[in-house]
Amino acid sequence: MNQQQPISFEPPRGMRDFYPEEMAWRERVFNAWRQATRLCGFSPYDACVVESLELLQRKAGEEVTDQIYNFEDKSGRKLALRAEMTPTLARMVAARQGGLRFPLKWSAIAQCFRYERMTRGRKREHYQWNVDVVGEESVLAEAEVLNAAATALRMMGLPDASWRIHVSSRALLAELLAGLGFAPESHAAVFLALDKRGKIPDDAIAALLRDGGLPEEGVPKVFRLMEVSSLDEAEALAGADSKAVARLRELFRLAAIYGFADNLVFDISVIRGLSYYTGIVFEAFDTERKFRAIFGGGRYDNLLTSIGGEPTPAVGLGFGDVVVQEVMKEVLGDCGRQREDRVAVGFMTPAERDAAVSLAARLRSEGRSVDLSLSAQKPKAFFKAAGEGTASHAVFIGPDDVASGSARLKNLETREESAVALAPAQTDTAP
Amino acid sequence: MNQQQPISFEPPRGMRDFYPEEMAWRERVFNAWRQATRLCGFSPYDACVVESLELLQRKAGEEVTDQIYNFEDKSGRKLALRAEMTPTLARMVAARQGGLRFPLKWSAIAQCFRYERMTRGRKREHYQWNVDVVGEESVLAEAEVLNAAATALRMMGLPDASWRIHVSSRALLAELLAGLGFAPESHAAVFLALDKRGKIPDDAIAALLRDGGLPEEGVPKVFRLMEVSSLDEAEALAGADSKAVARLRELFRLAAIYGFADNLVFDISVIRGLSYYTGIVFEAFDTERKFRAIFGGGRYDNLLTSIGGEPTPAVGLGFGDVVVQEVMKEVLGDCGRQREDRVAVGFMTPAERDAAVSLAARLRSEGRSVDLSLSAQKPKAFFKAAGEGTASHAVFIGPDDVASGSARLKNLETREESAVALAPAQTDTAP
Repeated sequence: MNQQQPISFEPPRGMRDFYPEEMAWRERVFNAWRQATRLCGFSPYDACVVESLELLQRKAGEEVTDQIYNFEDKSGRKLALRAEMTPTLARMVAARQGGLRFPLKWSAIAQCFRYERMTRGRKREHYQWNVDVVGEESVLAEAEVLNAAATALRMMGLPDASWRIHVSSRALLAELLAGLGFAPESHAAVFLALDKRGKIPDDAIAALLRDGGLPEEGVPKVFRLMEVSSLDEAEALAGADSKAVARLRELFRLAAIYGFADNLVFDISVIRGLSYYTGIVFEAFDTERKFRAIFGGGRYDNLLTSIGGEPTPAVGLGFGDVVVQEVMKEVLGDCGRQREDRVAVGFMTPAERDAAVSLAARLRSEGRSVDLSLSAQKPKAFFKAAGEGTASHAVFIGPDDVASGSARLKNLETREESAVALAPAQTDTAP
Repeated sequence: MNQQQPISFEPPRGMRDFYPEEMAWRERVFNAWRQATRLCGFSPYDACVVESLELLQRKAGEEVTDQIYNFEDKSGRKLALRAEMTPTLARMVAARQGGLRFPLKWSAIAQCFRYERMTRGRKREHYQWNVDVVGEESVLAEAEVLNAAATALRMMGLPDASWRIHVSSRALLAELLAGLGFAPESHAAVFLALDKRGKIPDDAIAALLRDGGLPEEGVPKVFRLMEVSSLDEAEALAGADSKAVARLRELFRLAAIYGFADNLVFDISVIRGLSYYTGIVFEAFDTERKFRAIFGGGRYDNLLTSIGGEPTPAVGLGFGDVVVQEVMKEVLGDCGRQREDRVAVGFMTPAERDAAVSLAARLRSEGRSVDLSLSAQKPKAFFKAAGEGTASHAVFIGPDDVASGSARLKNLETREESAVALAPAQTDTAP
């Protein structure tokens, strides 16, 4: 161990430190997720961030595989840091498929890693709230998942006018592609290509479509599909007996009962990058579309069979912590750390220290958060620090307070003061 | 992607899955940690579980270095999964040393990894609550940290009679070793050897002491030190002017004011495995000593300088999630998942589904947790599932309820029932 040479104090490239200020923001997001999980009756679950590489490779979308952080442990086991939670969910469900009571409504806050080029401040890790319903075919599953996400956005203080959920359906697109005469085998390539719209030029997408086996004359037809702008228009193309349109209509109807229909828009351009989606897909954005997707997800009915489990319908979403914080700062302002219901307790000389400790212990036993100063301070320094901190109240104990057996509890917002009793000095010794 | 071959559904060796049942236990522990953090006025912080290998190697104890999960990212950067949070804390503090207001009172719940032999169900990852005071020399820092830990144990429901904090001091041991004529250079080897007592035979420890440069006649003297059984006895050996004894006495005095002195015992055998401790050290155990340490920690005044930061006194503890759960299950019984304030809402036929969704939405908007059934059920099946679940209340909606506009909310514990209004059917459509 070389003790002399200083080393870098930065976190590894692409990884984040959360100092208390950043952590306060993160906690606002996590607390909203936890609250929505509780309100909507989802059961928290979790798994280790380290997974077997085989599992991640087996079900990852095409883009993800070469972005996996993988490594070997000291006995040569091939491991990886998960890039998303869904493969782990599938593994856990498959492991106990006979013993679980379906439908499952499970939720996790999972750190996920992707080795990406570092552009525009993109990070290599983020936290993602996962909300999944496993084992339910009805579109009520999609509605419950989206309702949980809407609940979380509201818990974060984001007004309804500031966000929209864009919804489409791969099943609908498959129906429309079949209507154009494209064989089912070509659909995956079409989804993959269309998902890149807006990220790469349309020429390049056309090339991808041709590479995927689409005939030259099919390319403009696919592009025209992307101009469908309403569910009515989609129905006119797909036919009145379209199952995919009926499911989308049912989702809108349920959303009205839940109370988030005004935030739901049909948007055929929503495709999703991952290959495993089979039905309704969705992405949420800030209304002004300044930022990337806030959350995304959809129905994935074949995932369990792809890893060797029983056929199981499922729908889920992933809701990251990064974009929503950008949206919150844009919409709500960077209000920073807020005052909390917390009492700062300080003391003037070492002779008042015991009284301060005793008061802190009493207030804490009453359920109050107390930030106890650990050394004697001048009143000015104490109140300056307390005023700049996050505490809502402050008590400063001087010699006179100990003599009188009472100190003043000051509300740092209103400046109001009230009296708090101080315990007589204790002189216990031990051991 | 081979879709046929089934793959293992187990997590990687040594890693844990948290199904909802296990997660409920974990949440009891995490919630107690979060509550104690809040009550005791510590600021949550966090950092990525991936650190630079250099940082971990620089400050890790001798035992830890070859247990690190390390790997290279795709650009050859040497990374590792942290084995403990303290190096990261030191890095973060050093990075902003000029801009932080000391003393810091910081807290984190951090997943940590160690590649260990898999004996007796030991895992290769655990969560560890870290509570640190950085920048405070006074023993009030130790007292605040221990008070936070005592608060958490009480929040977990563990009676005071079920746990003890064993406390000693490396500074005291250093004074005693100096009194025996051992040069300061030999102390680290003595600490390291003594930390293994109870894990390896005393013969092997004697050999370690000799390897560490201790003269043959010193070995029995060191073993006799380990028989010191009280602070008075330690003071008799160290002298009345012993600073280390004075600090320990002050800690016991403060603990009495905080109200956890009855749970604090002097125990010279507490050494701690990590090399960076400099003063008071402590470990908590279940009173019957059936399990490993519940938490441990101490003062580490030189850690920041070891990575190139400014000299900064510090004290902290690490409190893992595994042992305390074993203690809770032993002391409190394996009470499993408890009923929560949650309403299970079910419906008999698809015709009542909208009424169920509407009721769920309303109850949730009132702040209640609602587990909504996603498909029609027979009443018997619904109430059986609700009774076996964690919900405290249940509402089952049949055709008659919709007709009457009212259903019955049943308390699953007391069997009491009350009426809940159902909204008239909505027929919104969109988009």
